[in-house]
Amino acid sequence: MRETEQEAAGGRPAPPGTPRLGVGMVGYAFMGAAHSHGWRTAGRVFDLPLQPHLAAVCGRDPEAVRTAAARLGWDAAETDWRALIAREDVQLVDICTPGDSHAEIAIAALEAGKHVLCEKPLANTVEEAEAMVAAAGRAEERGQVAMVGFNYRRVPAAAYARSLVAEGRLGRLRHVRVRYLQDWLVDPASPLTWRLRKESAGSGALGDLGAHAVDLAQYLTGEAVAGVSALTETFVKERPLLAGASSGLSGTGSAETGPVTVDDAAVFTARFTSGALGTFEATRYATGRKNSLQVELNGERGSLAFDLERLNELSFHDETEPAVTSGFRRILVTEPEHPYLEGWWPPGHGLGYDHTFVHQARDLVHAVAAGTSPAPSFADGLRVQRVLAAVEESAAKNAVYTPVPDLEAS
Amino acid sequence: MRETEQEAAGGRPAPPGTPRLGVGMVGYAFMGAAHSHGWRTAGRVFDLPLQPHLAAVCGRDPEAVRTAAARLGWDAAETDWRALIAREDVQLVDICTPGDSHAEIAIAALEAGKHVLCEKPLANTVEEAEAMVAAAGRAEERGQVAMVGFNYRRVPAAAYARSLVAEGRLGRLRHVRVRYLQDWLVDPASPLTWRLRKESAGSGALGDLGAHAVDLAQYLTGEAVAGVSALTETFVKERPLLAGASSGLSGTGSAETGPVTVDDAAVFTARFTSGALGTFEATRYATGRKNSLQVELNGERGSLAFDLERLNELSFHDETEPAVTSGFRRILVTEPEHPYLEGWWPPGHGLGYDHTFVHQARDLVHAVAAGTSPAPSFADGLRVQRVLAAVEESAAKNAVYTPVPDLEAS
Amino acid sequence: MRETEQEAAGGRPAPPGTPRLGVGMVGYAFMGAAHSHGWRTAGRVFDLPLQPHLAAVCGRDPEAVRTAAARLGWDAAETDWRALIAREDVQLVDICTPGDSHAEIAIAALEAGKHVLCEKPLANTVEEAEAMVAAAGRAEERGQVAMVGFNYRRVPAAAYARSLVAEGRLGRLRHVRVRYLQDWLVDPASPLTWRLRKESAGSGALGDLGAHAVDLAQYLTGEAVAGVSALTETFVKERPLLAGASSGLSGTGSAETGPVTVDDAAVFTARFTSGALGTFEATRYATGRKNSLQVELNGERGSLAFDLERLNELSFHDETEPAVTSGFRRILVTEPEHPYLEGWWPPGHGLGYDHTFVHQARDLVHAVAAGTSPAPSFADGLRVQRVLAAVEESAAKNAVYTPVPDLEAS
Amino acid sequence: MRETEQEAAGGRPAPPGTPRLGVGMVGYAFMGAAHSHGWRTAGRVFDLPLQPHLAAVCGRDPEAVRTAAARLGWDAAETDWRALIAREDVQLVDICTPGDSHAEIAIAALEAGKHVLCEKPLANTVEEAEAMVAAAGRAEERGQVAMVGFNYRRVPAAAYARSLVAEGRLGRLRHVRVRYLQDWLVDPASPLTWRLRKESAGSGALGDLGAHAVDLAQYLTGEAVAGVSALTETFVKERPLLAGASSGLSGTGSAETGPVTVDDAAVFTARFTSGALGTFEATRYATGRKNSLQVELNGERGSLAFDLERLNELSFHDETEPAVTSGFRRILVTEPEHPYLEGWWPPGHGLGYDHTFVHQARDLVHAVAAGTSPAPSFADGLRVQRVLAAVEESAAKNAVYTPVPDLEAS
Repeated sequence: MRETEQEAAGGRPAPPGTPRLGVGMVGYAFMGAAHSHGWRTAGRVFDLPLQPHLAAVCGRDPEAVRTAAARLGWDAAETDWRALIAREDVQLVDICTPGDSHAEIAIAALEAGKHVLCEKPLANTVEEAEAMVAAAGRAEERGQVAMVGFNYRRVPAAAYARSLVAEGRLGRLRHVRVRYLQDWLVDPASPLTWRLRKESAGSGALGDLGAHAVDLAQYLTGEAVAGVSALTETFVKERPLLAGASSGLSGTGSAETGPVTVDDAAVFTARFTSGALGTFEATRYATGRKNSLQVELNGERGSLAFDLERLNELSFHDETEPAVTSGFRRILVTEPEHPYLEGWWPPGHGLGYDHTFVHQARDLVHAVAAGTSPAPSFADGLRVQRVLAAVEESAAKNAVYTPVPDLEAS
Repeated sequence: MRETEQEAAGGRPAPPGTPRLGVGMVGYAFMGAAHSHGWRTAGRVFDLPLQPHLAAVCGRDPEAVRTAAARLGWDAAETDWRALIAREDVQLVDICTPGDSHAEIAIAALEAGKHVLCEKPLANTVEEAEAMVAAAGRAEERGQVAMVGFNYRRVPAAAYARSLVAEGRLGRLRHVRVRYLQDWLVDPASPLTWRLRKESAGSGALGDLGAHAVDLAQYLTGEAVAGVSALTETFVKERPLLAGASSGLSGTGSAETGPVTVDDAAVFTARFTSGALGTFEATRYATGRKNSLQVELNGERGSLAFDLERLNELSFHDETEPAVTSGFRRILVTEPEHPYLEGWWPPGHGLGYDHTFVHQARDLVHAVAAGTSPAPSFADGLRVQRVLAAVEESAAKNAVYTPVPDLEAS
Repeated sequence: MRETEQEAAGGRPAPPGTPRLGVGMVGYAFMGAAHSHGWRTAGRVFDLPLQPHLAAVCGRDPEAVRTAAARLGWDAAETDWRALIAREDVQLVDICTPGDSHAEIAIAALEAGKHVLCEKPLANTVEEAEAMVAAAGRAEERGQVAMVGFNYRRVPAAAYARSLVAEGRLGRLRHVRVRYLQDWLVDPASPLTWRLRKESAGSGALGDLGAHAVDLAQYLTGEAVAGVSALTETFVKERPLLAGASSGLSGTGSAETGPVTVDDAAVFTARFTSGALGTFEATRYATGRKNSLQVELNGERGSLAFDLERLNELSFHDETEPAVTSGFRRILVTEPEHPYLEGWWPPGHGLGYDHTFVHQARDLVHAVAAGTSPAPSFADGLRVQRVLAAVEESAAKNAVYTPVPDLEAS
Repeated sequence: MRETEQEAAGGRPAPPGTPRLGVGMVGYAFMGAAHSHGWRTAGRVFDLPLQPHLAAVCGRDPEAVRTAAARLGWDAAETDWRALIAREDVQLVDICTPGDSHAEIAIAALEAGKHVLCEKPLANTVEEAEAMVAAAGRAEERGQVAMVGFNYRRVPAAAYARSLVAEGRLGRLRHVRVRYLQDWLVDPASPLTWRLRKESAGSGALGDLGAHAVDLAQYLTGEAVAGVSALTETFVKERPLLAGASSGLSGTGSAETGPVTVDDAAVFTARFTSGALGTFEATRYATGRKNSLQVELNGERGSLAFDLERLNELSFHDETEPAVTSGFRRILVTEPEHPYLEGWWPPGHGLGYDHTFVHQARDLVHAVAAGTSPAPSFADGLRVQRVLAAVEESAAKNAVYTPVPDLEAS
């Protein structure tokens, strides 16, 4: 253990009189719990110009939302998201609902003068996403900020990888590989939840996992995906209907079955704007892979590799070294100089999945205080959406190479 | 993502009227920050019979402790630990000070009728530890609980490893290997902090790292270390004195030097009560190893391996399988059935170092509510202390094999 | 060490009177050296019905081929491959020349009544490969055998993976991923060798590395690639011409440059006959990856992963196990029950790259003695060729999905 | 693939008229097979000043030795090792028998004017080893060479590790860890072979595995073990007698049992001459570890780690790099500049266990031709023997620290 009382208590702590930032959150399931953790913890670990205040959480079921508020640490509960937006003690609206409601809530919140954090994917369609970008643009002129929740950018190893690429440590990029592998749909008896229906989920593995993969690729490279060629597949075409009124993701299947209307897996190749070649894969059928978001970048001067299942590690090969002593090195991204580590523990004391939400809250609070646009912006979210749309278009057209419309040109 | 709103909000949340457990913490440096995280978070993630209340934190410097209270989320600040103990809103005293003050505070707290959580090592001497065990015994009769903070038992992979051993999956144990490797003293210019002086720290790598190693070995095996043969070494015998009045662990060295009076590294072999052979190592000079607590157990029916630098993984070899398909398997200890995972995220979404303090708080709250003795008890802490004392005795006697006095027999 | 004199000397050794199989090899560069090792060693390690006799090696330069014969252990040297084929002491012709000469030599040898081993890729065009398959078919009726040198099938881990798939341990396959990554062309100053010109090499990374990738995928799955969608790229379009008369792969570049006429990298997606999705990649620009042929298969009942850079290991996940103890296990494929291991060393004593050529020689000798067709046959080689042709066709047509003609239907 | 015909055929091959070095080998079990491979192959891969000639092999059973000669490639067979030594076509005697016959054969061969290669351990006792060193010293004056077969020094990764240490890349050494873990005795029903009886084997895991561990530690560090403190154990004290007349290591157990008279495992700590601390372990009970010789060295400027189960890899941490980009790098020790690689394959094409014997033959041939003493010398073998003797002495004296007599001082 290396520490001083000073350091361990987090450097120069904010004075007791730090102004508050009132947060109102819509939705309190998996993402809501994770975001709550972020809001509760950020100001305890990092120096923040504003202290997040968990003002109110919103859900449809009055009793359930009250219980969740008590559990997750929110001061109040609301059952109507419009009422939440209208609260005076809410300056920032955090949207953790399924994708089909993102556009309506986000645009309303922005127009009501609130800052917005919106879970990924930004929306279920490109059109919705475009409307959200427009609303965010108008709001930005009023000093509001809007961010989309691609939290994996805030894994310290990913943020550090980005800085190595930006510094030119990889040189000119030749290859980008991203796979996001999970396995929870491999059993054909798993029931037909809302995530497997196009009307609610928009798409399947593509939107859920592929969105992360594409955002991370564009973030790490600092480049855009210029075009794609894609195959998608629904391996299990019929699944048991959910028994009872369950609206969640698990539950018991009934004897009846219904059609799965989203993709089970998507594989695609891509060209990046620099000419680098990309390969992407998103699936829920990779048996034994639980949450394996794997990235590898190869450039003329070096390579990087990362796997979310070992999120404290970054593999880096430096091609400028003599061949006899070179090789992929396993960097433990836990040094005080690494991104986000100033608030945490001594070297080697690893972080977990939920720390990314603390970092997200930290960065967003700084953006609000500074009045500057945070990344990933809604425009970044739209960039991802357009890639996903091109993937679906290519898959529908026999995998023909399909350009992704340029955001700036549109 | 797999979840229902229900599950993600943590199952059946405690009713709003859950009674509180008032916690008072002494010390607010590295361990204090980690414990604060645990107390703040446990009730937000797990179903608890009592809701921890961060009543007051105690430190010598009035301004610093007020700042720390604000930062870490404590309702009040105290500058005298006796006053903290005396507070009516404090039912549990959490001791995060250096080892030389543990005995006095813990015994006073127990005698004042408070539950106690005491950081490891339990004390700096066996005698102090024995007095603490006696005090805890008396307190237990009054329904109080006392626990020592060997938090690595609460890494899910370690807890799961223990259950595999207890179920007999390894069969009769033959080998136990534990290394705790760090590297932060490798630079001879690193200054002479309190951790390098016997009067304050008790011992060096042995008490700091070796204590964890020994506790984990005894916990995982369910056996005691019966005797040891040890070498210790102080590689850098003089170090620069700290410039200025810094009392922490870092700081600038001055031109003057002073003697290092604790061990830099300790290596020892051991016999366990079952006849298994053990090898142990604790060092702060293992360049490149940041926080690498490595354990391997070999039994007649299987083996387990673990490295704290990859704390979400457990390696398990099952010797009862056909040789052609057997091999160490990498279990991602993130399934809902794994210890502590019911409160967290879907499979593959890893935890970090600080989660162990949330688990510690959880388990202690349950023990308080049930009035049952939690593990690791003060007696477990004393067991570790006796092993460390035997290591020092053996090292002083030319490594001769030195039995560890049996706790029950003493 | 576990052994008996009996076992270590290889079981029941062939009686001194074992008949010989005369081998004549064309070409003596990298592949020639590797094949020579295989022929020299197979009968020393395995029980063979025929003892390989290194009768003669053939090359254009009289002195160089004589020197190579002495070095590599061949009894005679020839400068005309037709003379080699005509030799009475040659019953098997082993073709280690570049791909543009394979068809002519192989067909001549088969028509002369010789058995043939032909290095991969089988040929530079589908038409040549078809002619070779036809010749092999005619020869088979005369009791001759013909094999193509996809040696990676003979890595024990790959052979064992195939048997696990064939036994149904993976269940229905969903995903196939194969990457063959090297990095030796990353430097733009690397000269324009014959491997970078279409007329000599046929294609670039696709034919050199992609051929292995496709054969291994079809071998391991027991399925055919049904269609592909591909992007190819030549990153460095001009390279320095070779200075001097060097015909090899290295050498000094001159000031003049010439165009690279083959692909530097190929990425493609695929559908297998069962409906599984495939992703493939072949490149010489993956900085830090030296010879990394990575394979992963995901099926409903399990998964397999392999990396040629760790060729003694196979990762296997068994989905039928309880989730709490499951995970990818690292099988050391060095048990006596594993393929090819009966001739080698005790468990844990790993094999290397060149052992695959010993195994290839072993299997081919058995096939010759039994008069049965060995795998991979020329037809297997043609199957690979057709996939590569479909890749090139798709790449030329904007990545559109391109079916691979069925061998049996053609 | 990167090669030229020139390179792949091994550089400048020895002229056909290279003089021969006649080798006579005693014993033809596991080690005999491995050595035969080395002698057969070295001249086919490396440029050698003398071409090894497998003149004759010697064993007690006339028929078995004739069969082995045919199988392994020896020109003649002998049944009396004295006759082998006397042969005019034998200039070098290679001793692959159990340890209790090493001294007699080696001394006789040296006195007959032959060069000698002797398998490890050099002898079963220090006294025998001393006599052998004396004989080697006398022979050296006559221009003969003598080497002991610690083949793991000739794993390229180990040889390269040695060069990094010698260049000062690790700086002052602080820690040396060596474990040699196997698991083939874990089953108590495994029979009582000669390896488990003190009279034939000398010791158990200590002499078999510990000898390699100690030699490798002394080789890599360039230091001597100054003293040790040891525990040894025989876990299974009685085992079934071998049924029938089997003299090998496997075979069926009978109903009767007999006592195991050697150690099953040995663990010891050590001090090196520089003051570095060492930990050693040798066992045949580490379930799941097949041939895992693990080494880690920590110095002030860097660290190295190696595992024989991944013998083509070396892990290197360079402490002189900035902490943010440092970490253990996995060097694939397959570059042409790495030790022994000049004769083999392109980067990433790994070697196996048996390649170490080819390297051993290569180095010994060079030593014979140059008339210079090769390493490891008989003196190196004696140094190991003395450490093992000190281990046994310490274990017999309650683990008390036991100095190892200095070779030069004796």
